[in-house]
Amino acid sequence: MHKNINIGIIGLGQIGSRLYEEILSKKKDIGIKTGVNVNILAISAKNINKKRNFKFSKKIFYKNPIYIAKDPRIDIVFELIGYSDGLSKKVVELALKNKKHVITANKALIAKNGDYLSSLAEKNKVNLEFEASVGGGIPILRTIKEGLATNKINKVVGILNGTCNYILSKMESSKDSFANVLRKAQILGYAEPRDPRFDLNGYDTLAKVRILSALVFNNKISKNNCLMNGIENIELEDIKMADKLNFRIKLLGITEIINNQLFERVHPCLIKKDTYIANVNGVMNAVILEGKPVGQSLLQGEGAGPGPTSSALMSDLLSILRGNIKYPFGLPFKKRKKINTYDKNQYLNSFYLRFDVKDKPGVLSSITKVFTKNKISIKNLIQKPDKKNKTASIVILTHEAREKNFNSLIFNLNNNKSVKKKSTFIRIEKV
Amino acid sequence: MHKNINIGIIGLGQIGSRLYEEILSKKKDIGIKTGVNVNILAISAKNINKKRNFKFSKKIFYKNPIYIAKDPRIDIVFELIGYSDGLSKKVVELALKNKKHVITANKALIAKNGDYLSSLAEKNKVNLEFEASVGGGIPILRTIKEGLATNKINKVVGILNGTCNYILSKMESSKDSFANVLRKAQILGYAEPRDPRFDLNGYDTLAKVRILSALVFNNKISKNNCLMNGIENIELEDIKMADKLNFRIKLLGITEIINNQLFERVHPCLIKKDTYIANVNGVMNAVILEGKPVGQSLLQGEGAGPGPTSSALMSDLLSILRGNIKYPFGLPFKKRKKINTYDKNQYLNSFYLRFDVKDKPGVLSSITKVFTKNKISIKNLIQKPDKKNKTASIVILTHEAREKNFNSLIFNLNNNKSVKKKSTFIRIEKV
Repeated sequence: MHKNINIGIIGLGQIGSRLYEEILSKKKDIGIKTGVNVNILAISAKNINKKRNFKFSKKIFYKNPIYIAKDPRIDIVFELIGYSDGLSKKVVELALKNKKHVITANKALIAKNGDYLSSLAEKNKVNLEFEASVGGGIPILRTIKEGLATNKINKVVGILNGTCNYILSKMESSKDSFANVLRKAQILGYAEPRDPRFDLNGYDTLAKVRILSALVFNNKISKNNCLMNGIENIELEDIKMADKLNFRIKLLGITEIINNQLFERVHPCLIKKDTYIANVNGVMNAVILEGKPVGQSLLQGEGAGPGPTSSALMSDLLSILRGNIKYPFGLPFKKRKKINTYDKNQYLNSFYLRFDVKDKPGVLSSITKVFTKNKISIKNLIQKPDKKNKTASIVILTHEAREKNFNSLIFNLNNNKSVKKKSTFIRIEKV
Repeated sequence: MHKNINIGIIGLGQIGSRLYEEILSKKKDIGIKTGVNVNILAISAKNINKKRNFKFSKKIFYKNPIYIAKDPRIDIVFELIGYSDGLSKKVVELALKNKKHVITANKALIAKNGDYLSSLAEKNKVNLEFEASVGGGIPILRTIKEGLATNKINKVVGILNGTCNYILSKMESSKDSFANVLRKAQILGYAEPRDPRFDLNGYDTLAKVRILSALVFNNKISKNNCLMNGIENIELEDIKMADKLNFRIKLLGITEIINNQLFERVHPCLIKKDTYIANVNGVMNAVILEGKPVGQSLLQGEGAGPGPTSSALMSDLLSILRGNIKYPFGLPFKKRKKINTYDKNQYLNSFYLRFDVKDKPGVLSSITKVFTKNKISIKNLIQKPDKKNKTASIVILTHEAREKNFNSLIFNLNNNKSVKKKSTFIRIEKV
């Protein structure tokens, strides 16, 4: 005879709705695999009357999700609202305190409050699971915590935001502008229709990087200043130029330990076309891990959307139903360290820059002087005159330089009277 | 205070030795992550005096591994001998009957006796874990059982044998012969020095395919006749020709459900160069899964060797130490189905063929007649005369044809008096 476990789902947007249907359609399969009979006993959403693909009894609908988090009949709560604080934090906190397991897809909540919430889960001997918060359908957190447990991982590199990867891929394949491709992405549901800022500026990727760091390096989630640049300033001109130079542009999230210090960063990268990561296109996500003794591991899968996300949520559910009580970050809260932050100004890197200058004698020499002054040496310089506007477009690839010198260079260039258009810069990454 | 768990390791070859060192060096980390203090209480190998990188007390050495499988002090047994039956089966059987968890890297044992041994494990309420048997360092079994639990998977395609992948990659990059590259692989430890047959003929890959099938389709391990061809007949000429035609040759293991029937196969494939799988080179392994709702997932990692294998063995160990008692194949033995076998003669496929003919008038027409007779139509024909030997090399790409017609074609060609050299054939695979 099967044991009964009762579920509450808070948030019935695209993800919550798909999850609701998945649980109902997989009820028998779940019973066979875990010996548990699951029931959805409560759901909550802003609007009960919104058009949905499925019917539900009004008896299980709660306008206020707090009741679900407190309801003594409920064993497992899904939080699918998506705020980093506010109601999301409140229902998760309450549910854990009431000894309910919590499953969430909310990277903003975990990146910000994951340490506190995980210690709360441990104290109450329940699980806090968040597989769906990073990498969509790729079971990357489970792979790190279980499949690669005891490996010493040195570096993680990932394409973690499907929206950005779609936009960059599409700009290349369609030769269309950033603005037009963004609009397409919004129509297709790949980008937030109202405010896609947090996807484009790297914030979403950074939240995921911080969760990954905590898992691979066993540290408390870092709150430090990281290197974070988004893709908002990338123009078709950059995509075309990268193509000519045998590179492709990708927004990468990277975390690594340099001299026992944690270095987390998110920025667009120029990557050689013949590498694996340069060929992960469209809405796909991918993660590369370097570990000992396992060597290099690579995982790729669909990064977003109701299908992949509900796959990850279901894997969390089955893990709980199988009775796997685990530390949310793989080891006890108290054993997780604080790792010092690497000084990003010391970071050594090569850069791609593009800017427009007035096309008149002496300009090039004045520009190159700015480079010399900042101790940055130029590897390639490509000048393309635009006679009609009496300007020239300049693309420069640099040798390796320190981040602090590079920042000073950018400041000097943007204040140089001969420079007509602020420079676009992209870091050149060897992966 | 930590609980004590005692381990026995049977087999101290490359893998067993590395595992021994891993467990000792990660003892503290294991304690933090699982709350368990692990001790290696018994080891066994053919030869106690063999030169090893580590020292051990002779008190823990047992000449006869049967003692370890029976020893009431031991909680977990590692079987690292590697036979499909014999002593491997005996120690695993005994250990399970004595209520010990068993961890093995032995695909031959699991592919042949996995059903029986898993039912034995379930009966005795212990775990039988075999992550290291498929995909080396890639936690592919765990990903299927846990990370993608409840997904409906339709097809799995994999590069599952590092030896073959190394040989094919190296033949392409070095333009060297099969025999020379095989010798190199043996020197580097990538291929069995005495008898590499089971790697080369597809048998090793097929064992892994059968384990994967059982996990993704929830069936009992199939014993049926599969399509199995190895890479032994592939010559440098084929590698070069594939390159010209924009293909690359890979040995793939594939399992899928066609019309509710199981179709498992292992054979060299011609794959378009611009696909992901064509670019997995060297000793790397890779697996592509098509699932619902997750979409396409892709995992890549080092396929063999002590590092990746011990990573997989350690993940099994930690899973047991965390108290995750699980069904070895993800669901109870009794619930696993028997799926009918797809009739491979019905399989529709395109082929690449290469053979030498006498270079005299009328030969080509006699050859093409053989194709017509077998209802196979030719898509491309490339003829290269060798005037000195009065022969010609012929390469043919066919349109899609049934396997049974193709087999009859091969038989007819090899018995045709104009054909001087048995034909090499490779299936063209769209992945």
